[in-house]
Amino acid sequence: MAAGAFPAQAEDGYDLWLRYRPVSAARAAGIAAHARAVVVAPTAAGDARVKAAADELERGLGGMAARAVRAGAGPQEGSIVLALGATGPAHSSAAILGGLGADGYVIRSTLDHGRRITLIAANNGAGILYGAFALLRHVQIGGTLVNLSLVSKPRIALRVLDHWDNLDGSVERGYAGQSIWNWWTLPDHVDPRLIDYARANASIGINGVVLNNVNAKADSLTDAYIAKTAAIADALRPYGIRVYLSARFSAPMEIGGLKTADPLDPAVAAWWRERADAIYRAIPDFGGFLVKASSEGQPGPGDYHRTHADGANMIAAALAPHHGILMWRAFVYSADNREDRVKQAYDEFKPLDGKFAANVILQVKNGPLDFQPREPFHPLFGAMPATPLMMEFQVTKEYLGQATHLVYLGPLFEEVLRADTHPGEARGTVADIVDGSRDGHALTAIASVANIGADRDWAGSTFNQANWYAFGRLAWDPGASSRDIAAEWASMTFTTAPDFVAPTVAMMMRSREAAVDYMTPMGLAHLMGTGHHYGPAPWVADLARPEWNPAYYHRADARGIGFDRTASGSDALAQYAPAAARRLAADPNYLLWFHHLSWTDTVPGEGPLWDALVRHYDRGVTEVVAMRATWATLTRFVDRDRFAKTGDYLAIQEREAHWWRDACVAYFQSLNHLPLPPGSAPPAHPLAWYEALRFPYAPGQ
Amino acid sequence: MAAGAFPAQAEDGYDLWLRYRPVSAARAAGIAAHARAVVVAPTAAGDARVKAAADELERGLGGMAARAVRAGAGPQEGSIVLALGATGPAHSSAAILGGLGADGYVIRSTLDHGRRITLIAANNGAGILYGAFALLRHVQIGGTLVNLSLVSKPRIALRVLDHWDNLDGSVERGYAGQSIWNWWTLPDHVDPRLIDYARANASIGINGVVLNNVNAKADSLTDAYIAKTAAIADALRPYGIRVYLSARFSAPMEIGGLKTADPLDPAVAAWWRERADAIYRAIPDFGGFLVKASSEGQPGPGDYHRTHADGANMIAAALAPHHGILMWRAFVYSADNREDRVKQAYDEFKPLDGKFAANVILQVKNGPLDFQPREPFHPLFGAMPATPLMMEFQVTKEYLGQATHLVYLGPLFEEVLRADTHPGEARGTVADIVDGSRDGHALTAIASVANIGADRDWAGSTFNQANWYAFGRLAWDPGASSRDIAAEWASMTFTTAPDFVAPTVAMMMRSREAAVDYMTPMGLAHLMGTGHHYGPAPWVADLARPEWNPAYYHRADARGIGFDRTASGSDALAQYAPAAARRLAADPNYLLWFHHLSWTDTVPGEGPLWDALVRHYDRGVTEVVAMRATWATLTRFVDRDRFAKTGDYLAIQEREAHWWRDACVAYFQSLNHLPLPPGSAPPAHPLAWYEALRFPYAPGQ
Repeated sequence: MAAGAFPAQAEDGYDLWLRYRPVSAARAAGIAAHARAVVVAPTAAGDARVKAAADELERGLGGMAARAVRAGAGPQEGSIVLALGATGPAHSSAAILGGLGADGYVIRSTLDHGRRITLIAANNGAGILYGAFALLRHVQIGGTLVNLSLVSKPRIALRVLDHWDNLDGSVERGYAGQSIWNWWTLPDHVDPRLIDYARANASIGINGVVLNNVNAKADSLTDAYIAKTAAIADALRPYGIRVYLSARFSAPMEIGGLKTADPLDPAVAAWWRERADAIYRAIPDFGGFLVKASSEGQPGPGDYHRTHADGANMIAAALAPHHGILMWRAFVYSADNREDRVKQAYDEFKPLDGKFAANVILQVKNGPLDFQPREPFHPLFGAMPATPLMMEFQVTKEYLGQATHLVYLGPLFEEVLRADTHPGEARGTVADIVDGSRDGHALTAIASVANIGADRDWAGSTFNQANWYAFGRLAWDPGASSRDIAAEWASMTFTTAPDFVAPTVAMMMRSREAAVDYMTPMGLAHLMGTGHHYGPAPWVADLARPEWNPAYYHRADARGIGFDRTASGSDALAQYAPAAARRLAADPNYLLWFHHLSWTDTVPGEGPLWDALVRHYDRGVTEVVAMRATWATLTRFVDRDRFAKTGDYLAIQEREAHWWRDACVAYFQSLNHLPLPPGSAPPAHPLAWYEALRFPYAPGQ
Repeated sequence: MAAGAFPAQAEDGYDLWLRYRPVSAARAAGIAAHARAVVVAPTAAGDARVKAAADELERGLGGMAARAVRAGAGPQEGSIVLALGATGPAHSSAAILGGLGADGYVIRSTLDHGRRITLIAANNGAGILYGAFALLRHVQIGGTLVNLSLVSKPRIALRVLDHWDNLDGSVERGYAGQSIWNWWTLPDHVDPRLIDYARANASIGINGVVLNNVNAKADSLTDAYIAKTAAIADALRPYGIRVYLSARFSAPMEIGGLKTADPLDPAVAAWWRERADAIYRAIPDFGGFLVKASSEGQPGPGDYHRTHADGANMIAAALAPHHGILMWRAFVYSADNREDRVKQAYDEFKPLDGKFAANVILQVKNGPLDFQPREPFHPLFGAMPATPLMMEFQVTKEYLGQATHLVYLGPLFEEVLRADTHPGEARGTVADIVDGSRDGHALTAIASVANIGADRDWAGSTFNQANWYAFGRLAWDPGASSRDIAAEWASMTFTTAPDFVAPTVAMMMRSREAAVDYMTPMGLAHLMGTGHHYGPAPWVADLARPEWNPAYYHRADARGIGFDRTASGSDALAQYAPAAARRLAADPNYLLWFHHLSWTDTVPGEGPLWDALVRHYDRGVTEVVAMRATWATLTRFVDRDRFAKTGDYLAIQEREAHWWRDACVAYFQSLNHLPLPPGSAPPAHPLAWYEALRFPYAPGQ
């Protein structure tokens, strides 16, 4: 067949980081020599996850070597052997396997009956699956199949994606098309795309998926929807993924015919037990529930003057006989509470420490506000030692430019996970809380709101895929380097060429700081347009609830700007351990988060506050201009469609970075009437122009 | 490269009927011998549509021959030559070309400077494009490139898809995912998918696209959205497709700052002129507007006590200097009008015949109600000789099972186009009205509401693609056979194997009658659930407006069923020419559309009405059972994913056909208390069970 007969399959991003394109002939020969067959050891036969692992190795190594890699049997020279437990060729790995737990794996070049093999061994099928993907990743980023010795296990047991997907197919804060769950035609039809979704998750160690929005509809707990959920569970199970559901607290009233959802009412508890039993009959390995209760208008135990522990423990009791868990969100703040919004979750939950059932884990957002470009870590981390706490990140960029802006979130995740809740003590980082090591919890979990939709490239852009990837990799190892992860991702997603990877990783690593600078520099937060959270609206101050207004957060006036959260203000600082509070108070990244300053106060090393603020905005814009210029130099490394879309989106980002900067500078200047620092350009339009912009069709609402 | 190294690209329906998969070696050699190169004659050079034609020939013939077909120059043996006008190799086709108009083409095997070539000649680039796709179709369905002599031209000038796509990405009555228009990121980013959309349309002769919902937002006429529309127009232009916009009648108030939208107010007219001028500056070949006015709550000239002609002519005047047209919908009925709903459009528009400006065309739905499984043709066809009338079909199956039911609409379209508005006279069919031949109109058009969305397979299912295809083919030639079109489509979409095509076409051809039978047999209509139009709800009778209720349409009670539209009733029959009215009154397909009968009346050849009705319902179910059984026998002809999805959907259809039949039979039986005819099974559930079903997440609303 002559070359060019068919148009090459366009690169449309669908394959994510699992592209498996042919490598050089020399490397292909090296792969082929060590991948003559994939052999499932008798110990591992019959495990669907091992089957999935074998299929993926055949597909991936076959793709890279550009020749068929087939299943084999028995000891074979040059084969890849998948073995469960420390028997047969894995016998010598017994000691290592003993420490690997359920999901860990060992990969090593070894001998089996005198034949050179590559062994992937683990204690269960999930470990084999993760080992297979680890081996593929090793090859994808340029490694060989020679002298292998890779051992890894996750630090966190439950690594979860939260889908804020509605039953009508829309996705709250989704910027990548409709939901990938075809609720309407489930369970009769299961979209084959779900298998590729499962592969992608398994490749980065994600082992749990919450299918529906935390702002849940009760319908998801009906028999009809349980059958639909069961069909999804069946599709994901071979990839080691359990499904969870967001449960609506008032469901006993809405679909159960009860007059109350009071958690202390026996009929309510009985209703939840009956529903849990029904779910587990259909899905024996169902993960459990995620509940958003008494928060932002959602029903909850507060409606009955019960505590969050009362509510959580009642539902958890329905799950416990089935070994299900309850993820209870700590994201609460009240319209009636005049206290600083960022203090309210701590105030509400800290007194409940130790009061939750054993199968309850509190899901705490990374910061005390709401997924801002930068926030200090949530003060609950480290403050509830008797309660398992799980992390909630947000991969979908609700507040970070949504679909179009290139913002790599790895550094944000890393910054939070490495934050020290108790400086000077051992095991004091947020990661040490989340992985259970500080307080000795076995129930450990980390979640992120997904950025996945029916768009062909899953995440709305190729670079958005990096955030899904980085979350998974950091969930597996919260101590990993976001830079290393970026390099890994770029190599797999585009090319291993160093002249591509180096500038791309550099651009990715600077991108989050750029977004902080052009949106909310120096500790500012939540200046986004209300509702859609798209674009700047720092002038909004007239909405009914104070904390709906950007003005609530920046507190700017003629004299100064910033939220005083020291002892002279809301004293949110007191919610942190004293040593952590001292650090945070002195951290220039959180200057205006914790302090209200005069416009003319001097910022150490940066001059007067106003000048410094404008320069941060300028720097953010300049950085995006540089990102776009960098990308333009990389054309020879990237296929046409992904290159063009990324370039188009960077052009949008550049324009919007200018917009953010100009609108915010114009607004703050309208308050302080100060001149711009030398060399800083005036905004392109008068403030009224920015204030008049409307976005009735902004996505994701 | 060894076979099987890469997983074959899964067939996911994205390629539609343009799959171009390799044919047998013998056929491939035949193609290759006559497709050594694609040569653009000097007369045709520089035309973007000719370039698109050449690209498609290279792609399509190259794909089928499994070898590269490249561009060439000059006379070449075995080349395909694209020539504009009757010069060079097309000289001998001058006489034919003279009669082909703008879009026609001639394809012939001929000699050029002694070399055997395949000539595609036309009067403009669009004709070349249509000729190229015709040649490809000829090969795709099994033809050779020998002794070719194909000539064709369309009977209707404007062949249009109406997208009911909203600016927020949702699609009204869309069952195939979100809109393919990425409004949010346009004009900065143009999704490459739009090129494949354009290719598909061009392949079936569609040359116009209305981008937005007839229930329009004024925003589509702002500068920002004009720029977005212009970017789409630029993408579609090389494929001979013009863009149109739905325009909101009250836009002068909503985005123009005027206090009125009165069509006789000079400021209003000036506003529309200014907006039209702005659009044409951005899109010189902009097609024009589609307007839904004074209908279903939409603003219109009725708000100012003006006529539809007043409204239409005012907007048309803004378009006329740019040669744009106005498509004005005749789909009107009023909450205040107690007249039979199906009579109201005729009553409103017939008196306006001859009162519309020259660039106005009235868009009339195929029937007088609303896209039902079966309706008589709209009485306006043939009743407004002085006014150009265009057809509005609906490819999206709002009332025919939506995404999942396999219902081939070709027979429905054909039945309407061949309906005789004036039996006994020449040129009396609906097609003769629409193609302008009866009344001598040069402005001719046909439209269909599209079924296209961001789903990978575009239309929600493979067989839904057939309806898009059939609409385009019948728009080109309203006299074509829907059976031939089905065979063509099945051959291109799956395989030319006769053992596949014959049963598949038979199944397709029976499918529409099956839907009529299991949903609304014997002339019944609009028994669908209110709002979502999904599933049966004949019992609904309590909604505020009478014509919102299914009971309004069936008029069933203890004694009988049907809508008396004879002289003793609403006399809707009188809106038809007498000879046509006589035919319709006697047509058993429209029995209960035009007549109210007693349950015990005898239907000629079918026995008592009640028995006959139940037997029709039974027959509809039986037919779907047979369709599903037929499909199950075809597994060897179809790839895994398309086969499975079609089978899954047929299972849904079978269940829902039972549901329709059982619910309707249970309801009607609750009125007449008559026994079921012998051998007819009782409904699976009591009526209350069906009445209690709720579908809060039904798509497309």
